[in-house]
Amino acid sequence: MAFKVDLNCDLGESFGNYKIGGDDKIIPLISSANVACGFHAGDPVVMKKTIETAKKNNIGIGAHPGFLDLMGFGRREMKISIDEAKAYVLYQLGALGAFCKSEDVKLQHVKPHGALYNMAAKDYKLSRAICKAVAEFDNSLIILGLSGSETLKAAKDLGLKYASEVFADRAYEEDGSLVARSKEGAMIHDENEAIERVVKMIKEQKVTSITGKEIPIKADSICVHGDGEKALLFVKKIREKLESENILIQKLSEIVQ
Amino acid sequence: MAFKVDLNCDLGESFGNYKIGGDDKIIPLISSANVACGFHAGDPVVMKKTIETAKKNNIGIGAHPGFLDLMGFGRREMKISIDEAKAYVLYQLGALGAFCKSEDVKLQHVKPHGALYNMAAKDYKLSRAICKAVAEFDNSLIILGLSGSETLKAAKDLGLKYASEVFADRAYEEDGSLVARSKEGAMIHDENEAIERVVKMIKEQKVTSITGKEIPIKADSICVHGDGEKALLFVKKIREKLESENILIQKLSEIVQ
Amino acid sequence: MAFKVDLNCDLGESFGNYKIGGDDKIIPLISSANVACGFHAGDPVVMKKTIETAKKNNIGIGAHPGFLDLMGFGRREMKISIDEAKAYVLYQLGALGAFCKSEDVKLQHVKPHGALYNMAAKDYKLSRAICKAVAEFDNSLIILGLSGSETLKAAKDLGLKYASEVFADRAYEEDGSLVARSKEGAMIHDENEAIERVVKMIKEQKVTSITGKEIPIKADSICVHGDGEKALLFVKKIREKLESENILIQKLSEIVQ
Amino acid sequence: MAFKVDLNCDLGESFGNYKIGGDDKIIPLISSANVACGFHAGDPVVMKKTIETAKKNNIGIGAHPGFLDLMGFGRREMKISIDEAKAYVLYQLGALGAFCKSEDVKLQHVKPHGALYNMAAKDYKLSRAICKAVAEFDNSLIILGLSGSETLKAAKDLGLKYASEVFADRAYEEDGSLVARSKEGAMIHDENEAIERVVKMIKEQKVTSITGKEIPIKADSICVHGDGEKALLFVKKIREKLESENILIQKLSEIVQ
Repeated sequence: MAFKVDLNCDLGESFGNYKIGGDDKIIPLISSANVACGFHAGDPVVMKKTIETAKKNNIGIGAHPGFLDLMGFGRREMKISIDEAKAYVLYQLGALGAFCKSEDVKLQHVKPHGALYNMAAKDYKLSRAICKAVAEFDNSLIILGLSGSETLKAAKDLGLKYASEVFADRAYEEDGSLVARSKEGAMIHDENEAIERVVKMIKEQKVTSITGKEIPIKADSICVHGDGEKALLFVKKIREKLESENILIQKLSEIVQ
Repeated sequence: MAFKVDLNCDLGESFGNYKIGGDDKIIPLISSANVACGFHAGDPVVMKKTIETAKKNNIGIGAHPGFLDLMGFGRREMKISIDEAKAYVLYQLGALGAFCKSEDVKLQHVKPHGALYNMAAKDYKLSRAICKAVAEFDNSLIILGLSGSETLKAAKDLGLKYASEVFADRAYEEDGSLVARSKEGAMIHDENEAIERVVKMIKEQKVTSITGKEIPIKADSICVHGDGEKALLFVKKIREKLESENILIQKLSEIVQ
Repeated sequence: MAFKVDLNCDLGESFGNYKIGGDDKIIPLISSANVACGFHAGDPVVMKKTIETAKKNNIGIGAHPGFLDLMGFGRREMKISIDEAKAYVLYQLGALGAFCKSEDVKLQHVKPHGALYNMAAKDYKLSRAICKAVAEFDNSLIILGLSGSETLKAAKDLGLKYASEVFADRAYEEDGSLVARSKEGAMIHDENEAIERVVKMIKEQKVTSITGKEIPIKADSICVHGDGEKALLFVKKIREKLESENILIQKLSEIVQ
Repeated sequence: MAFKVDLNCDLGESFGNYKIGGDDKIIPLISSANVACGFHAGDPVVMKKTIETAKKNNIGIGAHPGFLDLMGFGRREMKISIDEAKAYVLYQLGALGAFCKSEDVKLQHVKPHGALYNMAAKDYKLSRAICKAVAEFDNSLIILGLSGSETLKAAKDLGLKYASEVFADRAYEEDGSLVARSKEGAMIHDENEAIERVVKMIKEQKVTSITGKEIPIKADSICVHGDGEKALLFVKKIREKLESENILIQKLSEIVQ
């Protein structure tokens, strides 16, 4: 049996005169891009350019909707209503979708960003609002969410395709949730250990939790970072290892069907 | 031969806690709505509600893209580049389009808002950028622009459908442009005179310019205001007059084919 | 002994083309204004006009800093850091202060707005950050906060003047906090009852909690609403009652010394 | 007679997660900083940090107000009214002034940013509105504007102190205005030539215009860039040359009295 996995990265986060991320360098190394939609990052000109570059490299394109909080980069929790959440996601999906239309490429997936991702992972109602927006916009889109999260439950309940995301550099609690960054041991600093963990997640669908217990996990897609030389080297390293382990790197639409 | 005309009005201009416009009252009286897309006015929750109401009343739905200037309500000129103009319009079309998808209604037309409308009317390159955005998003959409404007020329050149808009309460220069509001005589204050002018525009395709000369004009759609009791009364009056003159009020998609 | 109390109202909440509040009508009826500073509401032109009107009517002027969330009117909780809170309040104080300088009036007080007010009421650290911003900007300013709140504790600890705010139309828990709006009985709908409660708060420094128990409360300032005919009538009614009870209505700076 | 000049640089242009400019590296090399005020760039946290760093290095601190256009970095012309211009400048002056108060440093000057700077240079009414805002906020502040501009005329007329800014890398028209960037020869690419021109401006109060004619110019302050290794090297080079020519580098408040 052949193993396969997607490598996803947040892209298109520049804004006006402000540049973030080494988009051009990371795009050839990944299989799916989560493109900011102008709320927490990105602007229309950046979105257009990002879609063009992703298209040229034939990677999967995803919408990356977030909170309307550019100053906080969408990383600060906001108590918005269910109706607001749904409308905000629809708005961002449509905006990004317009650039896909303009470039004649298909949108592949949706991954909520930052605080919206984290809040939704634990909040079924919020996840359901997000997934309803996706379903009403285009029910062929894949929801990309934290492995084991409420987001994926909501996607399943609404009949949407969904994919489980894992993090190479994060420790997991026994219940499959991410260890809070504020806790000791939350980050896996050893790159080789991080990569070994990922291979195990893919091949055995297991990860060792922070308590030392083996827990089940599903790894359809690995989240990587694209900003800075170190991040790029790590992605190259993880690619090599995956290849040597005969794990195919494929975009989400080829993994989730 | 039967005459027909569209009545259009700017709608969905509320924002968060801020309410503008008597949308619910004007919608039953018009045939097409220009819906704000979140740049100069409107927010995702307002857009959703506006699309729902327009759908219920079976009126034509148009996108009303403007400058990203909420504080100035999109009425202040901004020197943006051609690429920015195109990307900003695409973004707004997509955002509004998502709510149309969600409500399963078709977008009918696009009318630029405020300063963008006025600048584009005189600027072919800007108009072409706007029309290219529309063409790439959905080339079945109708461009609604000032009668005789560069906007309509650009639409024609790009093979898009287009419709000529006239204003009942504004005077026209000999070249068919609107008399600047700062000039004396720019506004037609007498309601009956305004309505008579409109009837003549529709039936004879002519209007008397501020210099007293009869000039040709095309009137596919009349712009009306929906805010305040006086505006509503004027719309009712114009409707009655049009009916008594056997001029059918129809949405743009039934006028422009 | 003479009793006295301040009547405060949120003002200057219009934004660009958007109008909120009957500022001109309510200003003559109150003694202190909380002026929005451009984050959750208000814009520079509105701020200038509001300060001018408040000055003409000789009422106390307060800064009303809120979250940077115009779409949510500052009413949605945002998880910002302590450093962010302090910097955001400083920014808004300075901005409003510039218009006071320009009109040669003194700023009297600071009252956090909406979600920031409610979060700070229960969060000493957040309150301390807000109060530190105030102390560094102008340590003669009065902090206006919920009676019994952490905000007033922080003000006291930092050596700032402070004033206790009460709500005529809200029920109180036994611990002096406001009954959550989602709970039954949270609102006092009977106007006469609401006014009687206020008189008792001022004269006896007591209020009957939702459980029926008399609890201590301090009422330096009563929060009133200024939007709509009903709100104005209520303010007039409360003024009459206060006068008939020989309770003087004075601005905060004459109450807190 | 001793010659002296100020070196000014735009600083504090980062925003949230977005970093622009090598502020920490350029600050020790300049004598005055123009600090963004949150409209076209900067945010409250960035403003606080920038003021702290400027204070530590004992350089002059200036407000750098711009258009409310973060997406365009304040570089796009906007047609705002005179009242809006004045209110927008007041707002930004106050906001930045609050951080000066908090750090107990005095604001030294005001330099409009980007499109506002360029528009004001040619527009007396706009310049007068900006200068009135400054006068009402603090009439001891120095207006820093283009040498020979309407901005400096307005400052003079209102009794404000003012300083003439020159650009080392820009060509001048015969009337003393900057050659438009779109014209050939607008930029002085040769670093040594640029520096020689500056020395001549300071010592002889003359510059050779693009037409070859010597024209009068006043050079109280030289605008330098701080972003990137090349810019830093140029500033070091210009400093060395100025020192070897016995031209003192001093902050504006020591030059304009």
